[in-house]
Amino acid sequence: MRSHFSPAAAGGSAATAASAPARPADATLVASLDSAAHAKAIELSSTVLETCAVAGVGNPTVAMGAAHAVATLLYQSMRWDPSAPRERHGDRLILSDAAYTPLLYAAYADLGVPAFIDGAWRPLATADLSRFGLPEGPLPASPLPALLAGIECAAGAAGSGLSLAIGSALAARIEGCERRHFVLIGEGELREGVLFEALAHAAEERLAGVTPIFLLSPLASGDRAAAIDGAEALARRLAALGFHTIEIDGHAPARIRDAIDEAARRAATNQPTAILARVTKGWGARSLQGGAWSGHIPAGDKLRTALDELRASRVGLTRSYGVAASRPTPRAAVAGARPAAPAKASPAAIAALPDFVRAMREADMTALYQTGRLAPRRAHALALRALGRAMPEISLFESDARRTLAGELFTADRALASRAHEFRGAEQHMVLAARGLAAAGRAPFVAASARSVLRMQEELLVAAQEGASLRLVATDAGLSAVASGPASTALSDLASLRPLTSIREASGASALYLLQPSDAYAAYALTLAAARHDGLSLLRIPAGEHEFLYTPETEFKLGQFEVLFEGRDLLIVTAGAMVHEVNRALDGLDDAGIDATIVDLYSIPFDEKALLGLAKRNGGRILVVEDNQGAPIAGAVAEACLASGGGFTLESMCVRAPAIVARTFANAVAEAKLSASDIVARASRMVGIEA
Amino acid sequence: MRSHFSPAAAGGSAATAASAPARPADATLVASLDSAAHAKAIELSSTVLETCAVAGVGNPTVAMGAAHAVATLLYQSMRWDPSAPRERHGDRLILSDAAYTPLLYAAYADLGVPAFIDGAWRPLATADLSRFGLPEGPLPASPLPALLAGIECAAGAAGSGLSLAIGSALAARIEGCERRHFVLIGEGELREGVLFEALAHAAEERLAGVTPIFLLSPLASGDRAAAIDGAEALARRLAALGFHTIEIDGHAPARIRDAIDEAARRAATNQPTAILARVTKGWGARSLQGGAWSGHIPAGDKLRTALDELRASRVGLTRSYGVAASRPTPRAAVAGARPAAPAKASPAAIAALPDFVRAMREADMTALYQTGRLAPRRAHALALRALGRAMPEISLFESDARRTLAGELFTADRALASRAHEFRGAEQHMVLAARGLAAAGRAPFVAASARSVLRMQEELLVAAQEGASLRLVATDAGLSAVASGPASTALSDLASLRPLTSIREASGASALYLLQPSDAYAAYALTLAAARHDGLSLLRIPAGEHEFLYTPETEFKLGQFEVLFEGRDLLIVTAGAMVHEVNRALDGLDDAGIDATIVDLYSIPFDEKALLGLAKRNGGRILVVEDNQGAPIAGAVAEACLASGGGFTLESMCVRAPAIVARTFANAVAEAKLSASDIVARASRMVGIEA
Repeated sequence: MRSHFSPAAAGGSAATAASAPARPADATLVASLDSAAHAKAIELSSTVLETCAVAGVGNPTVAMGAAHAVATLLYQSMRWDPSAPRERHGDRLILSDAAYTPLLYAAYADLGVPAFIDGAWRPLATADLSRFGLPEGPLPASPLPALLAGIECAAGAAGSGLSLAIGSALAARIEGCERRHFVLIGEGELREGVLFEALAHAAEERLAGVTPIFLLSPLASGDRAAAIDGAEALARRLAALGFHTIEIDGHAPARIRDAIDEAARRAATNQPTAILARVTKGWGARSLQGGAWSGHIPAGDKLRTALDELRASRVGLTRSYGVAASRPTPRAAVAGARPAAPAKASPAAIAALPDFVRAMREADMTALYQTGRLAPRRAHALALRALGRAMPEISLFESDARRTLAGELFTADRALASRAHEFRGAEQHMVLAARGLAAAGRAPFVAASARSVLRMQEELLVAAQEGASLRLVATDAGLSAVASGPASTALSDLASLRPLTSIREASGASALYLLQPSDAYAAYALTLAAARHDGLSLLRIPAGEHEFLYTPETEFKLGQFEVLFEGRDLLIVTAGAMVHEVNRALDGLDDAGIDATIVDLYSIPFDEKALLGLAKRNGGRILVVEDNQGAPIAGAVAEACLASGGGFTLESMCVRAPAIVARTFANAVAEAKLSASDIVARASRMVGIEA
Repeated sequence: MRSHFSPAAAGGSAATAASAPARPADATLVASLDSAAHAKAIELSSTVLETCAVAGVGNPTVAMGAAHAVATLLYQSMRWDPSAPRERHGDRLILSDAAYTPLLYAAYADLGVPAFIDGAWRPLATADLSRFGLPEGPLPASPLPALLAGIECAAGAAGSGLSLAIGSALAARIEGCERRHFVLIGEGELREGVLFEALAHAAEERLAGVTPIFLLSPLASGDRAAAIDGAEALARRLAALGFHTIEIDGHAPARIRDAIDEAARRAATNQPTAILARVTKGWGARSLQGGAWSGHIPAGDKLRTALDELRASRVGLTRSYGVAASRPTPRAAVAGARPAAPAKASPAAIAALPDFVRAMREADMTALYQTGRLAPRRAHALALRALGRAMPEISLFESDARRTLAGELFTADRALASRAHEFRGAEQHMVLAARGLAAAGRAPFVAASARSVLRMQEELLVAAQEGASLRLVATDAGLSAVASGPASTALSDLASLRPLTSIREASGASALYLLQPSDAYAAYALTLAAARHDGLSLLRIPAGEHEFLYTPETEFKLGQFEVLFEGRDLLIVTAGAMVHEVNRALDGLDDAGIDATIVDLYSIPFDEKALLGLAKRNGGRILVVEDNQGAPIAGAVAEACLASGGGFTLESMCVRAPAIVARTFANAVAEAKLSASDIVARASRMVGIEA
């Protein structure tokens, strides 16, 4: 932990480190630090201009506006080790506005932050910047954690940086780390609702380990947004949330350092601080400061003029300070460059957990168990508590003030309560914060209504792309939840998420597993399976009580399915609560003389070869029965059939109405024409029998 | 327009109407109005308790907290006609928190607002309340505009009411209507990011015709949320946005009336007002006021006690005023009860629009036209401007500060500029506001990145369910936009929306049409077709310039497709930019001796019978080529094949990688293994030729 240059180290070795933010003792020291920060900001700005000109991508003048903030933070105020930016106690710099990316790359190249380049980890070098934005290069226009140690999360939607930082700060609080998080937020993000959600949450949690830094350029006087998005109005809004606010000149290094120091002092009283920095786009190069340059990349003569202006700015500034600007030496070769993989829920610890029957017994639920039926969500809650007790990495994020059963059990255990967080309806912030928490090495379960999962599509796509280790638990999904009313349930959730299950990671694993337990055994086992899986999964738990279908011996694995009955006339594929309805059709199928095979396809994706083998032994006839709009299970099975070259007949029973209004599951399946008798009728037609 | 009771009308006919909010002239009048409002609030609260007890659904104590606000607004302050609540000049009451629904139903039943009951429109009556929440009933737990004239939009996610009201207020501003919108917002919605987006937008637009009314019950002193969600902090936040704020006792009718009057006075200076009303859950029934009752429904003895307490409260209050409470007579039979359908873009006006070639000529683009290639987005922009000029109903909502080409053309025309609105990145608010605008009889086009469309899933589901007339235009989608980088483009957008295309409306039309133009002709024609369609559509416009494929004679219709070549060996189905890549494969197909049929499937859903007929004439072999993850086109075609009973071989070429990084479309299709040569190779294998 050290700051990366100081006047004492001017021109010398970076090994002369300070363990705390540099605290100037006198005016000369201040001047020297300022001079160094100016010089570094100008150097980084020049690199940004050159990098963007070569790449033909980027928004260099916006990035230049952040040059002093980045130079002062990375080289002076932050306690971190460029050779190991993910060290757990090191401070973090998080870009919310992706426009600052080339600036961060320039600094990381200067400091030799480890990057994954051409198949190996080594310190990033300035020469690598020429590959900025190139398809095969290590420096994509949107940073990726797999390629650069100084990046913990992939860039997502505008306004999401603060949420990611809050996730990491919650992890730090749980683990007793003192790392701080500085988030650079651009003026284009101020209207993003998720940013408000994050600010309110940081204020409520009094998360002083996160400091949002707003970089605000002057708004045109005629702009109606000025009254709302200007520094003054923003400061009042932040203060009303409970933030201490500091307004500074974003190009004055001493003001930036002072603000960071003040934020650290406030942190002692748990008051979060927000810094509002007034900045100039294209700072240091007057010819680029017109609004016309925003979003454009100077080249040729324009570029040369701008670089000359930057050089002149540097000469003028360093002279005015009367001291020489220090120049840090980039770090030499890095040991242990590759970022440590985040700690995952340990498979061994999971293997040692009680099975469902023992868990019921230990929870004094033997009498309940003996009724032969149980709400799957109760089994899930038991599994989650067992996981939490066995593994300190497990955290629980919940959306709703009405706690779920899982939340009740989890928070009732005082040893677990500090790892449970409630987000008061701010679901989009929640899923971002969960990504931040996961990137910091923890294993979050995130409980949300299936309805709000519809809103998380973009975030789940990013999570899938970055390989985040994240477990969603969707409630109020499917026909079993229909009593909650069509405005608060979801029938299209699985279909809208299925595209992500066709994405494969390098390991061959799916980027997303959709898991649908049908009974308490399955809910218990699939909760453990999701914890064991180092990736993205969604557990869709049916509402209500359901009869036991399985035994303690049944194994549930991501990518598998379970055969409930094996026949020879027709393969019926189903999942979740619908397994029970298909079971209810068995007598009718028998009466019709149909010897059906029944599969509980509790996972998408699944073992396609095994399923199609079963189908072949059933005359190639497949009937999919599911309580979804858009037929995601039938779609997945159809893809498998097509990929195998055909020879199958597939029919799909799913929800085709816009909404199903009913009070009970039985009424809902009837309303959706998915009842046992509907299933028998369709199966009869398929095998050529008139029912 | 009138207020619904006044002391003068006490016990008498409702025909004695006032044309403006009641303005008490003296203390007796105030006392009388107050007494009436108290009596009505208590009457409505009693009805709510009984209604919820019968239905077994609802959150009655929360609804009771809003009883004075609803009684004072609907019966005293608002100018509206209960027999025609959608009359364009009438004030609107919008529930953001769905918990107030039974209260609104109680008032509407009392006032005889038209409802669609058992197949016909008639005034709602108190007896109808016994069907609250029943599947077949007129009063679902979440209100629907198709069933009740006093509801303009279906209830959506928490926090969405203000956005819907803003849409209606923008429509009113465009049309010069003076209607006002009062939005009841619950304390559970304060953390919703979309609510912040709406507040900031209302403040920026100085939309004084919308008055948010926050109903806040006291927070527990130990609640960490208190500092943020309390009335004081909320008032400061609202003031920082530019709202005038009024804090009142939410159970003091005179304070409510005064606040509404003050909001009206402020409206003259275009300053929006927010009202913060302190309320008590279960007001009037002390036995229900503990936190334990929130979310629960009293029945039996508990219900009888609560009703007795309400009666006692009424006696106590009306006595204290020393005047008799007035009792309005519910309206008698209603003429023209059925709400008028919103005005739609007129098909005749669209038919009279210039065709693409004439539009190019009129825009002095003949030289550009003669190059034989054009950016489809330019043709779309021309079509949108032509639509805007021909039809005053057309509005344009845009997300981004960097205006789209369509936005540029639209706003450059001074006659159209007032119908263009920019949302500064607040996409979720934007799509809600568009629903509000559409419900108010206007025809919005909503331009957003395909990425942000992923975030709109929940809203689009509600829009599909309510049959909203809404046209989305998605940019930066598919491989043609790949240069923008994987963090700002979308490849899974169509697959995640396809479930909604399987929902059918009563008319047989799809609840959503996914439209993919491939060239400028198609972009122009499909923009007009989307305008003509009274429903939900998404137009996905490929980036970049593309060669003309069509002629002025080609017709484009929702639910159709176009045959580009007719062969006999293999049916290749594609859409959007991929049509051009398939075209580039033609020579290779020829060389391989494959006589392929090529279909531009520009619409999902499509004429399945016609497509399968083509497939049969091509040996039943279908190859789908698309630049999507999750294979939505192949999925739609596969469903059609399965439904028809089989006999087809279908193969799917789509994007299977998590992300495609490339600079050009040509590189992107190669990277995704969808290039012309990949297509030829796959086609050759399908027809049994080794390429």
